[in-house]
Amino acid sequence: MRVDPARLRFEIEARDGAARTGRLQTPHGEISTPAFVPLATRGSVKGLLASEVAELGYELLLGNTYHLMLAPGAELIARRGGLHTFMGWDGAIITDSGGFQVFSLAHGNTTAEVKGARGRPKLDGGVISIEEAGVEFRSYIDGSSHLLSPERSMEVQAALGSDVALVFDECTPFDADFDYTAKSMQRTHRWLDRCLAWHGESGSNAQALFGIVQGGTHEELRRESAETVAAAGVDGLAIGGTLGRDKEEMAAVLGFTVPLLPPEAPKHLLGIGEPDDLVSGIALGIDLFDCAVPTRLGRHGMALAPLPERRFRYNLRRGAEAEQDGPLVEGCPCVACTRFSRAYVCHLTRIGELTGARLLTIHNLVYAERLMAGARDAIGAGRLGAYRDAILDGQAPWEASA
Amino acid sequence: MRVDPARLRFEIEARDGAARTGRLQTPHGEISTPAFVPLATRGSVKGLLASEVAELGYELLLGNTYHLMLAPGAELIARRGGLHTFMGWDGAIITDSGGFQVFSLAHGNTTAEVKGARGRPKLDGGVISIEEAGVEFRSYIDGSSHLLSPERSMEVQAALGSDVALVFDECTPFDADFDYTAKSMQRTHRWLDRCLAWHGESGSNAQALFGIVQGGTHEELRRESAETVAAAGVDGLAIGGTLGRDKEEMAAVLGFTVPLLPPEAPKHLLGIGEPDDLVSGIALGIDLFDCAVPTRLGRHGMALAPLPERRFRYNLRRGAEAEQDGPLVEGCPCVACTRFSRAYVCHLTRIGELTGARLLTIHNLVYAERLMAGARDAIGAGRLGAYRDAILDGQAPWEASA
Repeated sequence: MRVDPARLRFEIEARDGAARTGRLQTPHGEISTPAFVPLATRGSVKGLLASEVAELGYELLLGNTYHLMLAPGAELIARRGGLHTFMGWDGAIITDSGGFQVFSLAHGNTTAEVKGARGRPKLDGGVISIEEAGVEFRSYIDGSSHLLSPERSMEVQAALGSDVALVFDECTPFDADFDYTAKSMQRTHRWLDRCLAWHGESGSNAQALFGIVQGGTHEELRRESAETVAAAGVDGLAIGGTLGRDKEEMAAVLGFTVPLLPPEAPKHLLGIGEPDDLVSGIALGIDLFDCAVPTRLGRHGMALAPLPERRFRYNLRRGAEAEQDGPLVEGCPCVACTRFSRAYVCHLTRIGELTGARLLTIHNLVYAERLMAGARDAIGAGRLGAYRDAILDGQAPWEASA
Repeated sequence: MRVDPARLRFEIEARDGAARTGRLQTPHGEISTPAFVPLATRGSVKGLLASEVAELGYELLLGNTYHLMLAPGAELIARRGGLHTFMGWDGAIITDSGGFQVFSLAHGNTTAEVKGARGRPKLDGGVISIEEAGVEFRSYIDGSSHLLSPERSMEVQAALGSDVALVFDECTPFDADFDYTAKSMQRTHRWLDRCLAWHGESGSNAQALFGIVQGGTHEELRRESAETVAAAGVDGLAIGGTLGRDKEEMAAVLGFTVPLLPPEAPKHLLGIGEPDDLVSGIALGIDLFDCAVPTRLGRHGMALAPLPERRFRYNLRRGAEAEQDGPLVEGCPCVACTRFSRAYVCHLTRIGELTGARLLTIHNLVYAERLMAGARDAIGAGRLGAYRDAILDGQAPWEASA
């Protein structure tokens, strides 16, 4: 592990079992961890201004290398002064490497069933070739051909100017077998070395680099990957790839993977963010989570709510919500809940008004932020276990914190 | 003319030729006139919260009887305490009668060519019958049958609880002939009496009623309609129906119609709101304008700008905007112009991000508000003619006011 204090410092403040609170210091401010990281995939948190996301309490956003290199182009953003300036965001930015997106295209949708779906190692979705050099694919926008390689991913992320870059990796699908997963992991490790070489030679000292631990659901592969990535000299570690077919398998995989990682390093669990997954991940010692769940659910008419039996959400398009005068969730401090009725949000959602998507996006982001803030408080008070149990039992974050 | 001071008072403050500034006092606050009235067609200004529209300087919104009676239903809104409470809007609301929408369905799209298009008096678009009793039509949402009549329109508007209701009228299309227009106008006048009767018997004293002057492009019909509506006992007058095939004909029709109306009455020009139309209408003595232009253009990637040769707008989807570091419009005080580059809005617009539609909606509403504020200042200073000429000549509102 190499942590360059010029570009990133991570200080653990309190511990409660494996869980911990900390402060991640970046050139664009400090992030209180554990933190949820909203997606600004294409340069905006959909429907919100960056300043509005900051007002909800967020300090770190995730931008997407694959989407931004295709539109508007990383070099165009660099000419505008980088992604922070371009999108008007004063806080910190982490960028993914584009690996997840190009391999999702190739393998089919890898996001189903806890990020591991019925994908196959065959080429699809615009991917022309997967070679040791990198992945060649066609733009979904104009059909133009692009190469995403370790070096190109680093170059794009340098142009975007994110505070934290992720190394280029292959995200293996759920149904890849042991041999494919092992070979893919080894290539990901070779790509890690190339990312580090590019970053050392051409990268900015203001940009930290997180490695990605692969290995699928296989403990021996996760161990090998954790040791390789930790030894390579990165500023933090992310856990990528499939975590299994369901939440039980995810718990098992994380249960043996997280302890393999260096305790002092910041740990990012990629693409996970349902309320139960957040509190469970925090308990294992995860510091950062990014996920489309709060924002995507909001655009699809779903509100996060303390409903463990309904995957912590309900559908505002249901007719039964049309006459509900109460808020989306009782006690929620968000503007949707304090100023409007569930009936109003139901109406806007059913007819597809932009304001409905916006109110639900705000509610869901506030819900996730309150969940994380409650967890930080609980760790500080040495009662994370009780907090997690209360969340899993159906209490709202502000009830579970009380 | 009857102006009931309990529900509406209109005080003219300054005059400059036929133009005037005034204050329209409603149960939900005062409106400085001349004013532009943004559309909250289905209970929201698309993409914005009501409080955000107020922050842009607006005091009056227009809700839509036809759309709100179909979804979520006027009675549902009444059970929530009325439209103000339902949508969280503390300011005043004017509701249209639904006449424009049902007759647009019947006649085809009447909005083209200055609100008068190639419509024909044949039934179409879900309209089952047009009778003296009213218009029967099918819901575009679920196919259910509905009657919109003078009484039902008044009943719906009473349930919505708007500060100003509009009488139920037929909006005649551009290519209706003299006989059709005359007969339609006479029926609209009979419907006016029925609206007044319903309102007198069952309406609220807190809701004012505006009559609508019809008569198409025919001076003798506009005169007859103006005299009939003014004599009927309404709190204000709106100008409806076709204003001709182009802006020159509109200027002619408004030129002979506006002087026919009682000078002391508030005057609303329905469905008109391009920048040149606003300053020209103000010069004729119009006090209120509602129009989809700023908000709809915003959702379609267009920014209002001081470009008379390009209909006061330009398209952010054009590739040429992708490298522009300046604001949408130099000097504009809106958040889109003060915090973001044209390149950023272009990017968001081209990929269809909600935040792009939102930034352009805000910009366009601020542009229209600054245009109206500049006109009010100019009338107060006795220089509206120069202000109008400067706007028509391509100056931005804040330049033309200087």
